[in-house]
Amino acid sequence: MTTLYFAAGTCALASHILLEQSGAAYDTVRLDFSRSAQRSPEFLQLNPKGRVPALVTDRGVLTETPAILLYVCQTNAQAGLAPLDDPFELARAQAFNSYLCSTVHVAHAHKRRGARWADEPDAIAAMQKKVAQNMVDCFDLIEQTLFAGPWVLGAHYSLCDPYLFTIANWLEGDQVDIARFPKVAAHHGRMRSLPAVQQVLAAHALA
Amino acid sequence: MTTLYFAAGTCALASHILLEQSGAAYDTVRLDFSRSAQRSPEFLQLNPKGRVPALVTDRGVLTETPAILLYVCQTNAQAGLAPLDDPFELARAQAFNSYLCSTVHVAHAHKRRGARWADEPDAIAAMQKKVAQNMVDCFDLIEQTLFAGPWVLGAHYSLCDPYLFTIANWLEGDQVDIARFPKVAAHHGRMRSLPAVQQVLAAHALA
Repeated sequence: MTTLYFAAGTCALASHILLEQSGAAYDTVRLDFSRSAQRSPEFLQLNPKGRVPALVTDRGVLTETPAILLYVCQTNAQAGLAPLDDPFELARAQAFNSYLCSTVHVAHAHKRRGARWADEPDAIAAMQKKVAQNMVDCFDLIEQTLFAGPWVLGAHYSLCDPYLFTIANWLEGDQVDIARFPKVAAHHGRMRSLPAVQQVLAAHALA
Repeated sequence: MTTLYFAAGTCALASHILLEQSGAAYDTVRLDFSRSAQRSPEFLQLNPKGRVPALVTDRGVLTETPAILLYVCQTNAQAGLAPLDDPFELARAQAFNSYLCSTVHVAHAHKRRGARWADEPDAIAAMQKKVAQNMVDCFDLIEQTLFAGPWVLGAHYSLCDPYLFTIANWLEGDQVDIARFPKVAAHHGRMRSLPAVQQVLAAHALA
């Protein structure tokens, strides 16, 4: 059995949605970050990074959203959630997800996780001040050049869509109005209307 | 023809090494970051992110190291540079590369690119102070749990190896002694002894 470890409000939402859409049989374990459950000895043994998502499979534990998303697509190929037979299209998908994890998620993380990169409270406050503008810059790039529409890659829904949805969900908390990005906003509404998304949002208590 | 845009000292080194090892026919264009060539209108038209690597293919431009590395492996499958037929092993590889791009590269970037995340000089200086310890923490995790040896994934060389080599190359400039991580240090020496690596390092004027 495959088991997804997640916490509410984290990027694990993307893997959870895709798993639900893939038709795979899976369990979930919800960690309570407000109690630092990701730092428990039990969880650190599972994932020494102390982060979610972590996907426990029969062969071992997988981490990192872009890797888990592609794994779910490859092991549930019948669901058609990635352009698995077209290396260029798959690279477009991986480039999009890589941008989300290495730039957009990182831009957002400077709001609440500044202590990762500086110790001084003034420096952490300085980082927080810049989060909204950085998120605007990232989503301007997505809106204007990366997003094909109506789904991220174009006509076909893919592993990029739940990931974009997940990170766009953080915009409001970052004091950025998603309406600034009309294509992303329409995508967000389209995602919210999917039954699998509604079901997973409810499991995260975000519905 | 495939063309790689790179700049010396950047993570584009990983894609360059893998291209050289793949047997693919390719050209390179070297950008001079000291003259902000990545901000020229010509390059921004090619890659609106203003970053390298950028891989120009017959079908379009690809960006983001993890995506380019997998694309090179898939389009040169005979070179055997990725576990393409094993979704779990491929996910291990993608998880490793995703950790490098979203955590380790980001930890390093706070040394010279702090202005991305704060405007105040004191905050940027505070970030710089923490870079060495963050890189130590990242490489401790790699050394102790992620690196299988003798190559990143184990017995077989893969798309993870040139990427680890590239980022480990930054340790010295970050005031971290690679000798703290014996397995990573041995890997670094092993990589440096490969003719393709020596050839690419020379092209980057890093040999």
